[in-house]
Amino acid sequence: MDRLKKQISFIIEIDKLKTVYRQSLISDKSRYENDAEHSWHLALMAMLLNEHTNEKVDLLKVIKMVLIHDLVEIDAGDTYCYDEKAKIDKREREEKCANRIFSLLPDDQRDEMFELWEEFEKMETAEAKFAAALDRLQPVMLNYTADGLSWKKHGISVAQVIERNRLMKDGSDKLWDYAKQIIEDAVKKGYLKNV
Amino acid sequence: MDRLKKQISFIIEIDKLKTVYRQSLISDKSRYENDAEHSWHLALMAMLLNEHTNEKVDLLKVIKMVLIHDLVEIDAGDTYCYDEKAKIDKREREEKCANRIFSLLPDDQRDEMFELWEEFEKMETAEAKFAAALDRLQPVMLNYTADGLSWKKHGISVAQVIERNRLMKDGSDKLWDYAKQIIEDAVKKGYLKNV
Repeated sequence: MDRLKKQISFIIEIDKLKTVYRQSLISDKSRYENDAEHSWHLALMAMLLNEHTNEKVDLLKVIKMVLIHDLVEIDAGDTYCYDEKAKIDKREREEKCANRIFSLLPDDQRDEMFELWEEFEKMETAEAKFAAALDRLQPVMLNYTADGLSWKKHGISVAQVIERNRLMKDGSDKLWDYAKQIIEDAVKKGYLKNV
Repeated sequence: MDRLKKQISFIIEIDKLKTVYRQSLISDKSRYENDAEHSWHLALMAMLLNEHTNEKVDLLKVIKMVLIHDLVEIDAGDTYCYDEKAKIDKREREEKCANRIFSLLPDDQRDEMFELWEEFEKMETAEAKFAAALDRLQPVMLNYTADGLSWKKHGISVAQVIERNRLMKDGSDKLWDYAKQIIEDAVKKGYLKNV
């Protein structure tokens, strides 16, 4: 029962991901999205869009990665992707949280969590590149769907969005082509500053 | 591009799952949980607890099932598991929604969604039994963690909780043994009526 107890304590701990809010509005614009919902959305996107990757991927691994990729934000908080200052100590804050949270698990599962998270962060494998592409595409889609309100609030420019999201291409040329169309349209609609 | 467009329209449509609220409070008791977060939580539980199933399961299939199992509630709404009246037309409402939403996808993916949902609903395969066990265990855990507030609000009895959750045993004897301990303790703490 000791093994199960450790697993359960982890499962209860990660419930906190539901209270870590992001800068994207959900599509009905009623409130900000949280990390748990975001992770669910990415997992379903992985299921549906894996045919568009540049390289063949192990779908189960991609799904595991996106399900756990934001757990480190339970203590570290969400770092807004266009906040250059907050990014400075991001890795340090997240590592501390990974150590605390993953260590609630039995050793083998703790190690699996660390490996998945490290692989995701490094963006070197086909799975990690695709997961990173989804993690970028989803907020672009949501921001576009919610009339660009979050981009407008933060005064984000098309150059910033391109710079942030161009690595989508490493995971999927097709998804990056689609994202560029949305971004172009977002400029036309005045959601993004045209600089 | 036509295939991708269909997939994207589905991905945007299902964002609505984030606004379908359940009767469980999240663990900090600040608000009710929504279906998207709930589905994420189940997928992570599947990853961590699949060693405890009675029969060996295909983990990817279990995860797919739990990720999509509540999509039919986008139109049908969440039916509270102890609301016997609301259950009467549940299936009809959910089928209508499945038809509308899954049909946004390319035909092969529409068919996959229907098959996964049907398999989940029937609770016959090892994967569906385990998915159903998780779908029952998670709210029991959350309700217990949130001081039984939701059970107390609805005046739920231990007999109702046992009746609703005993099929957890079909997926995992071990998880059902654990759930029984929680339920017993919930009675002692006055979270559940002792009838």
